[in-house]
Amino acid sequence: MGDVYKDALTIHKQYQGKIAISSVVPVRNKEDLALLYTPGVAEPCREIVKDKSLSYDLTWRGRAVAVISDGSAVLGLGNIGPEASLPVMEGKALLLKQFGGVDGVPIVINTQDASEIIQFVRHIAPSFAGILLEDIAAPRCFQIEEALQDIGIPVFHDDQHGTAIVVSAALRNAAKVVNKPYDSLRVVIIGAGAAGLATARMLLGLNCSADVCERIRGHAAVQDVVVVDSHGAIYSGREHQNVYKQAIAGVSNKDKNHGKLEDVIKGADVVIGVSRPNQITPEMIKSMAPKAIVFALANPIPEIMPDEAIKAGAAIVASGRSDYPNQINNILAFPGIFRAVIKGRLTTITQTMKDAAANALADFVKNPTATSIVPDVFTPGLGEYIAKAVLESLKK
Amino acid sequence: MGDVYKDALTIHKQYQGKIAISSVVPVRNKEDLALLYTPGVAEPCREIVKDKSLSYDLTWRGRAVAVISDGSAVLGLGNIGPEASLPVMEGKALLLKQFGGVDGVPIVINTQDASEIIQFVRHIAPSFAGILLEDIAAPRCFQIEEALQDIGIPVFHDDQHGTAIVVSAALRNAAKVVNKPYDSLRVVIIGAGAAGLATARMLLGLNCSADVCERIRGHAAVQDVVVVDSHGAIYSGREHQNVYKQAIAGVSNKDKNHGKLEDVIKGADVVIGVSRPNQITPEMIKSMAPKAIVFALANPIPEIMPDEAIKAGAAIVASGRSDYPNQINNILAFPGIFRAVIKGRLTTITQTMKDAAANALADFVKNPTATSIVPDVFTPGLGEYIAKAVLESLKK
Repeated sequence: MGDVYKDALTIHKQYQGKIAISSVVPVRNKEDLALLYTPGVAEPCREIVKDKSLSYDLTWRGRAVAVISDGSAVLGLGNIGPEASLPVMEGKALLLKQFGGVDGVPIVINTQDASEIIQFVRHIAPSFAGILLEDIAAPRCFQIEEALQDIGIPVFHDDQHGTAIVVSAALRNAAKVVNKPYDSLRVVIIGAGAAGLATARMLLGLNCSADVCERIRGHAAVQDVVVVDSHGAIYSGREHQNVYKQAIAGVSNKDKNHGKLEDVIKGADVVIGVSRPNQITPEMIKSMAPKAIVFALANPIPEIMPDEAIKAGAAIVASGRSDYPNQINNILAFPGIFRAVIKGRLTTITQTMKDAAANALADFVKNPTATSIVPDVFTPGLGEYIAKAVLESLKK
Repeated sequence: MGDVYKDALTIHKQYQGKIAISSVVPVRNKEDLALLYTPGVAEPCREIVKDKSLSYDLTWRGRAVAVISDGSAVLGLGNIGPEASLPVMEGKALLLKQFGGVDGVPIVINTQDASEIIQFVRHIAPSFAGILLEDIAAPRCFQIEEALQDIGIPVFHDDQHGTAIVVSAALRNAAKVVNKPYDSLRVVIIGAGAAGLATARMLLGLNCSADVCERIRGHAAVQDVVVVDSHGAIYSGREHQNVYKQAIAGVSNKDKNHGKLEDVIKGADVVIGVSRPNQITPEMIKSMAPKAIVFALANPIPEIMPDEAIKAGAAIVASGRSDYPNQINNILAFPGIFRAVIKGRLTTITQTMKDAAANALADFVKNPTATSIVPDVFTPGLGEYIAKAVLESLKK
């Protein structure tokens, strides 16, 4: 581990980050300049004045996505501010290019005020084909994303929906491996932030249009989810609950369990940690139902280290890390989703599209095993496969 | 001309613009991902938490500059809005890379309100090493740039200072060619917007610190400048003058000429058009002093076409276009200046640095002639030469 961090620092310093701007056209002489710059450039300008949508065809906008963060909830590091979050956003931009063929631009901003963030994104919208929001703390991330659904380009908060998509895909395959019906699973989610609440909603089949729910009911909704925050299980009427926690309380925790994590985890089939390092103990895993599924997703230090979870008897263990099997990481989803955004010139990303992405991601693993419930991100064609599924869901 | 525009449209469509994001590091396998993304990326984040300036070393920030416009004063096309201005901003980004080795990112914004633009730039500042403001209408461009001098990274309004730097360098060499002492020149500037007022100030040696003025007095200040707007010559006490015009009125137009352009241009040595197409007639040029210098810089259609100006008897003619000799274009200055910004990690761009850039640009032409008063932008080493001069000016 020490070496990973040391080497990471060395490589970031050596290359001064991870991305650069490159030209896609030759600029060799005055003739090239006359076409690409003045006077020629006036003509694409004039065309776009007549039809703004031509900005997608005549500039890089049609391929470009902003990766925006206020640095308030970065990995497991917390509120580290804009400058310190830049390595992560630059990483997302790198991955958008590598796995989605999308030109991502990291933008970290000097405010953590929800209405100022909303205004900032509204102002920057004409520059890009989509907005990937990253690492913005709950609950303002919900408010921000909701307020930006009408700006004409998709705004996708990765910590919510990217996580929910990948977790639900992984869980479908994990259920197959342990031979339990997906819809019978009892799931405990640790963390009621962006990732926890969005994952709970997705697993429960909420935000799902009627026809989609009908179509996917057989495997899309788990039986029960209990979300746990630092005060214990979330249930209707509990104190210390913002409106987003109240909303999930009404549709989860069927047994109205009021306990702490160590209580509610007893007998659970699945625990999904999207919280902080070291929240899960070996004893908790031993108290779960047989063939326990443990997703310990805090980054970079998970709720329990994967080898400890296995030692405690978990049947399937996943983490967010690149250096263990079953990497449940948004990297599996957002490049493909934003590939769909640029290919289909999407204006929003609907729940139907998210379900389609999760289905595609699960299906991409032909024969899931305990150490391969999700695809290797390097499998050729993954981003394209997800993008295709997202775009095909529009036709149904 | 028709062909330039048609070909420009074709090339913009063919490549879907002009720039892309590329990775500067290999991403081949899980080991690479563990260094560049999770868990490794946490380490550069932690380092930057301790020292924000490390964001320049550990991310692309140290090489990255935002090219920001509200689309309110684009080329000679006017207020065409953000989407339609994107081809120009993408072009500036392309040129920053090509001629300055700087990673420029085009950002067009959905507001033309000065205080909203100021707030937007303040918010985006942690993402970049510098801000190149482009094509923002006067007079709010002055207010915006002034309000942003304290944000910790340089904010440089190209239409003002880029133009002023290149024009003053070109004029020094033009004076040599026609064998008139630079400080004896009588100059008429058409246009009292961003470019016109900044050029007037630079030619008059204003904003110049005392020691710099002392050092460059021999050739830095012209004798008199008359700025003309749509109401005629600007003079103290005239109506229709915003505060920025009032300011220049106090230090220019020594003879208090109250006339229209056709009056004040009589007997002038130099006319500099930074206004709109077709403002200069052959008759006006004929009324100027012998060996007239005509800079017709409106883009893409100049105040008078260069061949017409020559026919009317001008000794030296320059335009902003790539397809005529003497291209007086900001392209000669901003890539080198922003190369200095990233190499020197500058926090502001002072008048001393601008003067140094103008001197370097003029000096770069070893033997100026009537058709080569400025360098060819493709001359190897130009950007580096300007950057070096800017950085050396800091040591004096």
